[in-house]
Amino acid sequence: MQQTNKIAVLRMPTFADAFILMEKALAQRKTLIVAGKCRVDYVGRASSKLELGERILIIKADGSLLVHRPVGYEPVNWQPAGSVFHVTAAENEVEIRAVRQKPRENVKIIFAEVFMVSALSLDDAGEFLLHASEEDMHKAILIKPELFEEGFEPISYEKKVEPGFIDVYGVDKNGKLVVIEVKRKTAGKEAVLQLSRYIDAIKEKANRELRGVLMAPSLGKDVQRLLVTMGLEFKALDPKQCAEVLKKAENMRLEHFFQESQ
Amino acid sequence: MQQTNKIAVLRMPTFADAFILMEKALAQRKTLIVAGKCRVDYVGRASSKLELGERILIIKADGSLLVHRPVGYEPVNWQPAGSVFHVTAAENEVEIRAVRQKPRENVKIIFAEVFMVSALSLDDAGEFLLHASEEDMHKAILIKPELFEEGFEPISYEKKVEPGFIDVYGVDKNGKLVVIEVKRKTAGKEAVLQLSRYIDAIKEKANRELRGVLMAPSLGKDVQRLLVTMGLEFKALDPKQCAEVLKKAENMRLEHFFQESQ
Repeated sequence: MQQTNKIAVLRMPTFADAFILMEKALAQRKTLIVAGKCRVDYVGRASSKLELGERILIIKADGSLLVHRPVGYEPVNWQPAGSVFHVTAAENEVEIRAVRQKPRENVKIIFAEVFMVSALSLDDAGEFLLHASEEDMHKAILIKPELFEEGFEPISYEKKVEPGFIDVYGVDKNGKLVVIEVKRKTAGKEAVLQLSRYIDAIKEKANRELRGVLMAPSLGKDVQRLLVTMGLEFKALDPKQCAEVLKKAENMRLEHFFQESQ
Repeated sequence: MQQTNKIAVLRMPTFADAFILMEKALAQRKTLIVAGKCRVDYVGRASSKLELGERILIIKADGSLLVHRPVGYEPVNWQPAGSVFHVTAAENEVEIRAVRQKPRENVKIIFAEVFMVSALSLDDAGEFLLHASEEDMHKAILIKPELFEEGFEPISYEKKVEPGFIDVYGVDKNGKLVVIEVKRKTAGKEAVLQLSRYIDAIKEKANRELRGVLMAPSLGKDVQRLLVTMGLEFKALDPKQCAEVLKKAENMRLEHFFQESQ
């Protein structure tokens, strides 16, 4: 490995040396990592004060900012992209100030000790691919029924009916029964016929208005006509969107946990 | 500054050296920071793949994990506390695997290049104090009317009536007008009398049922009785809670922005 320009690191620097590398890193829009003992003042929509403690500060090339304590996955202070930075050094501290205009926000990180300063040139064009299985897509609809439509109330999923299992089953805002068949990829004629068999099986038993809905990222060629002929509906559902719903639900569950356990 | 045990840093280490420090840092529950070129595989509620790119990995003492790209304040991959870690070194890569049991989740970070490894012993008992001004508290009620009660619909805030300005003004779920007076600190008799003056002024004009509500962190001594006598209500409202609502609202606004601008 070469790339000596890739990274500069100072371990236990003086305030003067820390100041120089911080200034340079921010001016050159590098990624800046600082570990040290600091306090943080925030004034913006609300305001906060974080008393002295040992933390990690990350400032990215786009001006986003994170302050991380030694525990917890959430940053204690953060700013989205677009801040402007000012570094000032005094005899016994270095201060980094991040100012954002819209909304007006101001974060001051005052280091009373600096353990490490690192300036990195990072290059990242790697794609992020989020996947959801068909079962994940069912769960996402249960968690967020608006993925189908406003007012939809799922009753169960994977309900057994004669020809097999219904993916998602519920009631719409007008009280009509809804049977949803989910496909992870472009739905073909087979999916329509499968849904139609479920609908027929339920119609035999339930004396109630019934909607059959195919949910998939897209419909195959000529499938729309078959769908309409059979009195069924299509509603687009993207696996990626479902994966995000699940990830967000997990996140919220954890946030509640953290709030309740405080 | 001394504290040489506080921090170990390797700049452009060999895979073998990187491996040793990573293992040691995780075994000793230090804060681990790794900068390098990596790919990330996640399997859990959903699944994701992040292709090769240069990033920062942070693993904290409690087992929480963050992978940060060079832009954006949100981590691309993250795990809450409680993961168990395994480090393995091959000839041309180092792999860190994080396994969580409940829910079952698995993150693999495979480094094809390591620019820096740092192991830190961080000590942070500093308190985090979140503040909201009285105006912040008004805004929080507008953003999240359930802070007052379910079904409340604010109409405006800082409505002018004869004796001054009403803090928050709206309609409850039964159609009754609601006048809310907000105090940042324990509310005393003066706050009750102020609210009462507003109520009287509105009663002269509006021929409609009216509720007067005092919202504050707490009620002063003997104030409850005065409140009841005057036919007014009290509902607790914590400035910290309001600050969190505002911070969260800002966060969501940004998330929407990011999603729409993708």
